[in-house]
Amino acid sequence: MMYDIEVKVSLKAGMLNPEATTIQRSLSLLGYEVKGTKTKEIISFVMEAESEDDARAKVDDMCQKLLCNPIIHNYTIKIIKMDFTCASCE
Amino acid sequence: MMYDIEVKVSLKAGMLNPEATTIQRSLSLLGYEVKGTKTKEIISFVMEAESEDDARAKVDDMCQKLLCNPIIHNYTIKIIKMDFTCASCE
Repeated sequence: MMYDIEVKVSLKAGMLNPEATTIQRSLSLLGYEVKGTKTKEIISFVMEAESEDDARAKVDDMCQKLLCNPIIHNYTIKIIKMDFTCASCE
Repeated sequence: MMYDIEVKVSLKAGMLNPEATTIQRSLSLLGYEVKGTKTKEIISFVMEAESEDDARAKVDDMCQKLLCNPIIHNYTIKIIKMDFTCASCE
């Protein structure tokens, strides 16, 4: 079965986020005062797996090994089963 | 009023995404065949504004001037009004 995967990666609380700090300072130079700026990344892709649990186990392994650094990052995994039943065939 | 803002920035269709290409190739080196890899960025912050429309106009200006490059990026803006009514005061 094919699954649509979305991994959301964010820094753990307390970790410095230079990108967010730079964005906040730059916005204030533009005249916009904002607070609590944070950045997250979303990585999405399509993959084949036996089941949702199988997909979750594989994606978790991908996160641990490549997609993020478990020491400084939190990550969440969203899995959507792709439904290829053709509307006109039903 | 305070608003919780979330800006999601993604590349327009047809734009090369070296980061996504690198992720897809690296995953296949790990033994995971995935397709259609994409990356997006989420920038979130808190800001003060007169109304939701005022907040949207300001954030749109921030996107045009700083948060993304309108030539190569699409962006979506999510605005949530922050409700400070204290539960025990009601």
